[in-house]
Amino acid sequence: MSEAAWQAALEAAAPGRVSFSPSDRATHGRDPAHVHGAPPDAVAYPLSTLEVRDLVLACAAHGRPVIPFGAGTSLEGHVSAPQGGLCVDMSRMNQVLAVSAGDLDARVEAGVTREQLNTHLRDLGLMFPIDPGANATLGGMAATRASGTTAVKYGTMRAAVLGLTVVTASGEVIEVGGRARKSSAGYDLTGLFVGSEGTLGVITEVQVRLHPIPEAIAAATAAFPDLRACVDCVIALLQAGTPLARIELLDTLLVHAVNRRAGLGLEEKPTLFLEFHGGPAAVQEQCAFVGEIVSAYGGGPFLWAERAEDRSRLWKARHEAFWAGQDLRPGAEVMISDVCVPISRLADCLIATREDLDARGLLAPIVGHVGDGNFHCLILHDGQDPREVALAHAANDAIVARALAMGGTCTGEHGIGLGKQGFLAAEHGASLGLMRAVKAALDPQGLMNPGKIFAPLEAVT
Amino acid sequence: MSEAAWQAALEAAAPGRVSFSPSDRATHGRDPAHVHGAPPDAVAYPLSTLEVRDLVLACAAHGRPVIPFGAGTSLEGHVSAPQGGLCVDMSRMNQVLAVSAGDLDARVEAGVTREQLNTHLRDLGLMFPIDPGANATLGGMAATRASGTTAVKYGTMRAAVLGLTVVTASGEVIEVGGRARKSSAGYDLTGLFVGSEGTLGVITEVQVRLHPIPEAIAAATAAFPDLRACVDCVIALLQAGTPLARIELLDTLLVHAVNRRAGLGLEEKPTLFLEFHGGPAAVQEQCAFVGEIVSAYGGGPFLWAERAEDRSRLWKARHEAFWAGQDLRPGAEVMISDVCVPISRLADCLIATREDLDARGLLAPIVGHVGDGNFHCLILHDGQDPREVALAHAANDAIVARALAMGGTCTGEHGIGLGKQGFLAAEHGASLGLMRAVKAALDPQGLMNPGKIFAPLEAVT
Repeated sequence: MSEAAWQAALEAAAPGRVSFSPSDRATHGRDPAHVHGAPPDAVAYPLSTLEVRDLVLACAAHGRPVIPFGAGTSLEGHVSAPQGGLCVDMSRMNQVLAVSAGDLDARVEAGVTREQLNTHLRDLGLMFPIDPGANATLGGMAATRASGTTAVKYGTMRAAVLGLTVVTASGEVIEVGGRARKSSAGYDLTGLFVGSEGTLGVITEVQVRLHPIPEAIAAATAAFPDLRACVDCVIALLQAGTPLARIELLDTLLVHAVNRRAGLGLEEKPTLFLEFHGGPAAVQEQCAFVGEIVSAYGGGPFLWAERAEDRSRLWKARHEAFWAGQDLRPGAEVMISDVCVPISRLADCLIATREDLDARGLLAPIVGHVGDGNFHCLILHDGQDPREVALAHAANDAIVARALAMGGTCTGEHGIGLGKQGFLAAEHGASLGLMRAVKAALDPQGLMNPGKIFAPLEAVT
Repeated sequence: MSEAAWQAALEAAAPGRVSFSPSDRATHGRDPAHVHGAPPDAVAYPLSTLEVRDLVLACAAHGRPVIPFGAGTSLEGHVSAPQGGLCVDMSRMNQVLAVSAGDLDARVEAGVTREQLNTHLRDLGLMFPIDPGANATLGGMAATRASGTTAVKYGTMRAAVLGLTVVTASGEVIEVGGRARKSSAGYDLTGLFVGSEGTLGVITEVQVRLHPIPEAIAAATAAFPDLRACVDCVIALLQAGTPLARIELLDTLLVHAVNRRAGLGLEEKPTLFLEFHGGPAAVQEQCAFVGEIVSAYGGGPFLWAERAEDRSRLWKARHEAFWAGQDLRPGAEVMISDVCVPISRLADCLIATREDLDARGLLAPIVGHVGDGNFHCLILHDGQDPREVALAHAANDAIVARALAMGGTCTGEHGIGLGKQGFLAAEHGASLGLMRAVKAALDPQGLMNPGKIFAPLEAVT
């Protein structure tokens, strides 16, 4: 009866666009790393902010959770629905609403993907650089404070998002932020929603900063004799303030994996993938400087990807690292770590982690956005074997403990979701109470993506 | 009795460092633009985070407001104490706690000023670039989300602050953020406190990002035939993605004023002050490109400030623009606007504003961080003459209304304080309710800098 009334209210909010089918529900409750996620009770495909509002109001009236869903590419169980409820799939809200070349900004519906936006922008000579690898939606990227390969130059979604339209827990439609490049007008609510993982409201529109496509782009790879030389080179480049656009590390195992998957033919050693953006003279100057430092650490020579299609092939291979890694053990599940440490600790952290993974006998290639001090271990394991699952968890726990001890964070860009709640408490101890106070103030019923970031709060009446 | 008990509690919290003298109170209640601010009842000079905590607890126990005070250089009445209470003067918490050249970061007590930090860093080849002009404290800059001349390259305090130590309204000492370059670990509380203007707690320590001093620095001025040519040139440079470190506009009247004050001998026309940072080839390339664009808009030639001391003289003159402007009418008070608009609207906004100020017969030089779309009008008026005060307010209202109509913000970097509360409501209508909800959740007694950002909330019991 109550269930039927809720279902009828959903159908009234988004007529013909609410699914209760087991397959729709199952595919919307899991992500590539949390393949056993819990399905929601229903999946809606709204076409507008007002439909999202009506869906949220229907759920609020019936006390049912609301779980926003972008492209399903998040990695911490964000879309899992442990308490059931409604998955709000934003994929049909995929209009680029406005692009202003003169202001270097764009407004998009939350379901627009980053590749879609860049295709839309290309003829204007503009780009949206934030690049988490997966073809995620802008709404999802905002919700998880995503970043990726270009954060070392262009920052994360925190810097890229100028404003948002949000449907709050009470079903209000509000706009936060704006179009000015900077503002000190009150609390930074945009920054609060960026990274809130759907726990404070549903993002329906995103205003983003754009950048001109650089006049000159150069990309290259460079192999190193060992991991320490490779990471020490990165640290030296960062400490010198070198304006790198991308600097990605693949360890020997992952180079092997991407060679297998993408036929790159790279020497199987710890390798940097680099990119430089700027004016022609600036790029030439950067390349020469970086070449010297690379040599000084025993790396190189640079293998240049001169043509645009060579660069695309290189970065496509990098972006498919998750799948390339998984291919090393067909059928295996992937537990993926995401620690980020202060730059000076990066070599110690990475090497200790590599040695620890090897000592535990785990097949776990490593890839890193090392320009930010951020790296991922892809811990391959048999998800049906409790012993292997326990081993993977123990290794992941050790990775995070090591990073926290070095002044780092348990997650550079993937978020907390379901998977890292214990680590959040370890990292942010006292301030967790403030986060909970904000959650309780903005979502007193506790219905917005409940159980994510922290365990659900008691409902406040 | 209650007053005596509160005073005794303060004295116990910071023995010998609490002042009740009328002169201390008077100087702590006003700023350069709000010279009639209300004095606090007492001023404390804590030496540690724990003393700040004890002062906050003493005020919470007695229901008295807490108003943090840095260098007193904010411009929106932030330090005024309309409800009395305790001013917490952070000037004696002025230790640089740690500098890590390897991580390009530093941790400082909130009372450290930006000049003090840069002096401390110079021998390490490092700099803290955020530069609001005044020699503000890092705590105050964080609290108002300050920026200044270098935000076009290095961002605002939002980007510069990695983490904070905060004493909350309940007297808890918490750390937010951390040392990793990026993190997706829960809500961005650092971003929430940056720009909260003391209304959510007292910032006692600040972790900031540093940058290497650039290998090459070039600075120059260029005069233009009129304001439109000058601003159109800026827009063209920004749209091309030119990596400028500084691009500041002074209108004819302000060039006249800084010539008078600093003897710069500049041609009295709308003028850009520019700076370029990077490798030598990159800087040379930028200068050549900018020179072409400047010429195309009828500006130039560049007048180079070749030597470090010439650059210092140039930027010192720029930083004293407030005082240079005020000197145009000795004894006058200054009402200072701070709007920021999307780049494409900057010329229209600036020119309409200049014309409007002239039509109103106001002496009001304009200076702008035009790389961000941000500019200030220094509206000189006789603060004792109600007619002039009303005229200044009317002009300021018109400036903000014009900027908001163009998609801008009422404050790019000064904050809301007392002075812009009506504008905040106009700009952020619906989301003001969320800001109030956050305030009520984190400061239920409403004692943290009450009356700032928005009118005080009813105390929640």
